[in-house]
Amino acid sequence: MASTPITIDTINPKVLECEYAVRGEIVILAQKIQEELKNNPNSHPFDEILYCNIGNPQSLSQQPITFFREVLALCDHPAILGKSETRVLFSGDSIKRASQILDQIPGRATGAYSHSQGIKGLRDTIAAGIEARDGFPVDPNDLFLTDGASPAVHMMMQLLIRSKKDGILCPIPQYPLYSASIALHGGTLVPYYLDEAAGWGMEVSELQKQLESAKSKGIIVRALVVINPGNPTGQVLAEKNQKEIVDFCKREGLVLLADEVYQENVYVPDKQFHSFKEVARSMGYGDKDIALVSFQSVSKGYYGECGKRGGYMEITGFSPEIREQIYKLASVNLCSNISGQILASLVMNPPKVGDESYDSYFAEKNAILSSLARRAQKLEDAFNGLEGVSCNRAEGAMYLFPRIVLPNKALEAAKEAKTAPDAFYARRLLNATGIVVVPGSGFGQVDGTWHIRCTILPQEDRISAIITRLTKFHTEFMDEFRG
Amino acid sequence: MASTPITIDTINPKVLECEYAVRGEIVILAQKIQEELKNNPNSHPFDEILYCNIGNPQSLSQQPITFFREVLALCDHPAILGKSETRVLFSGDSIKRASQILDQIPGRATGAYSHSQGIKGLRDTIAAGIEARDGFPVDPNDLFLTDGASPAVHMMMQLLIRSKKDGILCPIPQYPLYSASIALHGGTLVPYYLDEAAGWGMEVSELQKQLESAKSKGIIVRALVVINPGNPTGQVLAEKNQKEIVDFCKREGLVLLADEVYQENVYVPDKQFHSFKEVARSMGYGDKDIALVSFQSVSKGYYGECGKRGGYMEITGFSPEIREQIYKLASVNLCSNISGQILASLVMNPPKVGDESYDSYFAEKNAILSSLARRAQKLEDAFNGLEGVSCNRAEGAMYLFPRIVLPNKALEAAKEAKTAPDAFYARRLLNATGIVVVPGSGFGQVDGTWHIRCTILPQEDRISAIITRLTKFHTEFMDEFRG
Repeated sequence: MASTPITIDTINPKVLECEYAVRGEIVILAQKIQEELKNNPNSHPFDEILYCNIGNPQSLSQQPITFFREVLALCDHPAILGKSETRVLFSGDSIKRASQILDQIPGRATGAYSHSQGIKGLRDTIAAGIEARDGFPVDPNDLFLTDGASPAVHMMMQLLIRSKKDGILCPIPQYPLYSASIALHGGTLVPYYLDEAAGWGMEVSELQKQLESAKSKGIIVRALVVINPGNPTGQVLAEKNQKEIVDFCKREGLVLLADEVYQENVYVPDKQFHSFKEVARSMGYGDKDIALVSFQSVSKGYYGECGKRGGYMEITGFSPEIREQIYKLASVNLCSNISGQILASLVMNPPKVGDESYDSYFAEKNAILSSLARRAQKLEDAFNGLEGVSCNRAEGAMYLFPRIVLPNKALEAAKEAKTAPDAFYARRLLNATGIVVVPGSGFGQVDGTWHIRCTILPQEDRISAIITRLTKFHTEFMDEFRG
Repeated sequence: MASTPITIDTINPKVLECEYAVRGEIVILAQKIQEELKNNPNSHPFDEILYCNIGNPQSLSQQPITFFREVLALCDHPAILGKSETRVLFSGDSIKRASQILDQIPGRATGAYSHSQGIKGLRDTIAAGIEARDGFPVDPNDLFLTDGASPAVHMMMQLLIRSKKDGILCPIPQYPLYSASIALHGGTLVPYYLDEAAGWGMEVSELQKQLESAKSKGIIVRALVVINPGNPTGQVLAEKNQKEIVDFCKREGLVLLADEVYQENVYVPDKQFHSFKEVARSMGYGDKDIALVSFQSVSKGYYGECGKRGGYMEITGFSPEIREQIYKLASVNLCSNISGQILASLVMNPPKVGDESYDSYFAEKNAILSSLARRAQKLEDAFNGLEGVSCNRAEGAMYLFPRIVLPNKALEAAKEAKTAPDAFYARRLLNATGIVVVPGSGFGQVDGTWHIRCTILPQEDRISAIITRLTKFHTEFMDEFRG
């Protein structure tokens, strides 16, 4: 007789083990405070919660790119395509684009399941977009369209991980999707540490060391995860460094899992995004030389369409039999959502010079990216001005990952509160200011160092006020705990 | 030196083991033939491929419900909401509904990640819709919005399955999502057989027998899957039968996983859909008595919006600690797509009598459902008219699952071709007619019986032609192989 059959002791222990700090306890507390503020605006020393915990631009008032949304709306309701009022409400090229997309969809049916890998015509468009970006050919059959990048990452982990003996090399700090997915699939995360002192640089000697160490413990390392531009660390890899990584994977027989979702988020003139595929091909390495997966998402970039759940992975260097297995995994979930598929085709093939929407598209894109660059710089400077804080350069992505040297009394107080020191700091920050950040312990960090991840996404006209609140909090915190 | 690090022998064997016939070898062959027809219209003895393998109504020209698409389009491009042309193009209540929905979304941001369980306001709407359907209260915090029902099923399997020792009771025949998901999560499918002679009836004595048999092998059975209306079997459970199932789960301490995605697809006047939650609550069983999960999807019903990937699960009877774990699993993938979330709220709260769109909405819905009922009847009759074929009554869902008694010579030919006899039949049918069905072996069946699953979805004006093609093929097939 078990009227409540499932208890915490009888569920899958891999689920228990998995952690996802980006939506962890600090965020749950923030949601609680938000409810309290709604019921009583004077219940806390601030008016509102500022979510700097997650790369979710439109939740902080970033507006979508008009052209993209026009096309999506027309594809949702093609009945209005031929109407004269539509020509007043929508740009001419969005009408044209929507018609072209509908022509690529069998039966023009945006409400039908597509091919498991995504609509072929949209994959053709994306393939052309990647070719234009990299200068190397792309086979549309190498593309798997997915509901954002996360399901694609899960699919690869599911394919590669057989047991705890299988290891995946991951950067530390890392985006916790990777640790969560590896835990859920029962594998072992083999950490390699990014060098904070060298701008979160990636050293092949460190990769080699960790690989050997894992091997000596009987771990079979199967793949290397690289996040470029970096999350949470914001660095953009140099091409020379990328070449070393490609050679390392080739030499060691590792699948290179390249998280390239921030490819459009580069803010400094001395760095440029190069895809790992471009780098590998420019080294003369083809399908036979290296197995490579590139993840892309519509959630990031200047578009920031997180809620649309669109994305793709490009897989190269896998045998036909393996590809069949990946196809089967994709088929079990039938297909990714069609709006997300359409949007993925749009971000990889936006309006071109001469198109009716080009000028407004370019102005919107440019406004977002240049504002993000300014916000990153301001916040970086502010963090670096705080006592005990040193902050990496924000070269790309959407985050800063400042290190905070906490006074001993703060470490003791955290210990007493049974929480990690950076979680202690983040909780205090939230309670004092309404600002939500993620403790560095959620991403991994060198033992004894403490960080927070803070997005650069709050609206530009509020950055100064945020910096004021942050500075006031930090000063008071240090005053309270200074030894 | 491994230049191709991953081989079929070194991937996760659970992936190899998993099967998904709905998009299996017959469908891959169909896609190949479709390409051949495109290049040479005379390459096969038919003009086009007719996909009867999958419940994908809009791929066979079913039109979406206008009101739903109006609201989706307006939510995609809210900039046009206030324009006078919009009032010409869109119904008044779709404009009103879109505005209401946008008001429920924090910052009106349809491009932002939502709460991991889905937008709270939309969950409120869905909760009210379930309450109106069942007459029992619903807590919006019990709802998890998902990209169709499949990810929800995976989430529950991931939670419940620890190892091969954990069993999930599944109907045979079953929808292969269940066998695939159980295989991928490394559990054991414990089959219970539906009784074909009793209209695919479900007997508690069979459940009990299979449960005991599994227990005797050391399997810990954790949950029971029920698909109602049935897939692939099309039966609608009687309420009395549902009560027995609820009592069985309560008594045995099993989680009841109720696949209720065909709740709007009932075609016979003597049967009615009742949710398992309604049945359990009407028996006086509450949260403390039974753990129950109901899956719903926007892909089925009269709406058939497969490409939108919307759905939800309602979970009741789980402790707060377990719910936290489910929340964490949902969080790892951030959220389901917002258009799918909006659509889920629309199907659970469609236009009401008196709303501007009600008449056209009702006419569209009624036309689809009554046509499906006629098509089901015609195909059922046709199958029953074929030599050696007996077909269940199409009470609900979107499928017929006729049994085919194949002549011995056909069984021998199949053996020679190293394929299951029903797959042999399905392949022959495809090659002769272009009609794509799924072999019964993809769903499971009593040993020595052979079936095919055929959807009732081809356009009504083509059903007669399909029946003619099918009959001609079947007659020739039997003539060829009759002993």
